[in-house]
Amino acid sequence: MTKIAQTAIEADPKLPIIRLTRDFAATPAQLFRAHTDPELFVLWNGPDSLTNKIDYWDARTGGSWRYVSSRAGEHGDEEYAFHGSFHEVGPDRIVQTFTFEGEPSGVALETLWFEDLGDGRTRLHAQSLVDSFEGRDAWLRSGMEVGVNEGYARLEKLAAEGRL
Amino acid sequence: MTKIAQTAIEADPKLPIIRLTRDFAATPAQLFRAHTDPELFVLWNGPDSLTNKIDYWDARTGGSWRYVSSRAGEHGDEEYAFHGSFHEVGPDRIVQTFTFEGEPSGVALETLWFEDLGDGRTRLHAQSLVDSFEGRDAWLRSGMEVGVNEGYARLEKLAAEGRL
Repeated sequence: MTKIAQTAIEADPKLPIIRLTRDFAATPAQLFRAHTDPELFVLWNGPDSLTNKIDYWDARTGGSWRYVSSRAGEHGDEEYAFHGSFHEVGPDRIVQTFTFEGEPSGVALETLWFEDLGDGRTRLHAQSLVDSFEGRDAWLRSGMEVGVNEGYARLEKLAAEGRL
Repeated sequence: MTKIAQTAIEADPKLPIIRLTRDFAATPAQLFRAHTDPELFVLWNGPDSLTNKIDYWDARTGGSWRYVSSRAGEHGDEEYAFHGSFHEVGPDRIVQTFTFEGEPSGVALETLWFEDLGDGRTRLHAQSLVDSFEGRDAWLRSGMEVGVNEGYARLEKLAAEGRL
């Protein structure tokens, strides 16, 4: 199987979905922890320019989460807040909702799953479903790939350092 | 505005969405209570042949819910269980996830909103978004309109009886 070293970001041609795919030198259990342990999540969730702070986080089926990403700006801190619900938290699959509070009407349904490639490697699949192509395409044009790529590079570094 | 007395059930031609629309002789606040108060919800959620029992229900942003619908069968009770998360609970809009546990891989993102028509009447809009047209169309073919129509008829009756 070909190694996917950079994140593949694909817009489905027929569904309002973005799909991310990336390989990691980590086990499924390690990637699961990286996405459910808040102390690990804040260390890698991108982009690099922002610092993540958990407001609340209850990573179980039926739980919910909120975090605030910020950086010092000329006129005080810039803050971006996000929240959602954990619909399903299992070792092989996480299903959660996601809202950026700067655009509160928008809600994405995210599904993550961990494909074991053997030899301690795992392919991460992340799918985001929204209710319009316009919303999906605006998200793609927003520069989201910077946060995705910087975040997953930090996640890879945590795995290499044995911190997952 | 034309009265929508029966539920309009529409499959979006370009998105994997089912949209339900129905008018009620009730205020938005009454419809909100009917969807968030578990003691009211069990009284109307259809179809008529099933009895609803709440397992857990926390109707606030970040809460979750589960109920079991059952009927006596020849070989003991038939039970159908459903669960999800309340992503957003507000007076004008409810966003929640929905899974029928008989098909646990399927997750719908449901958005409900209450359009005030004046004179104590409200148009209920309910949108269910899933991640494939096949899943959406299977749901449409499942006979879901029976539960929808019987349930909303009971909801209308609760409103007429002043019980909302």
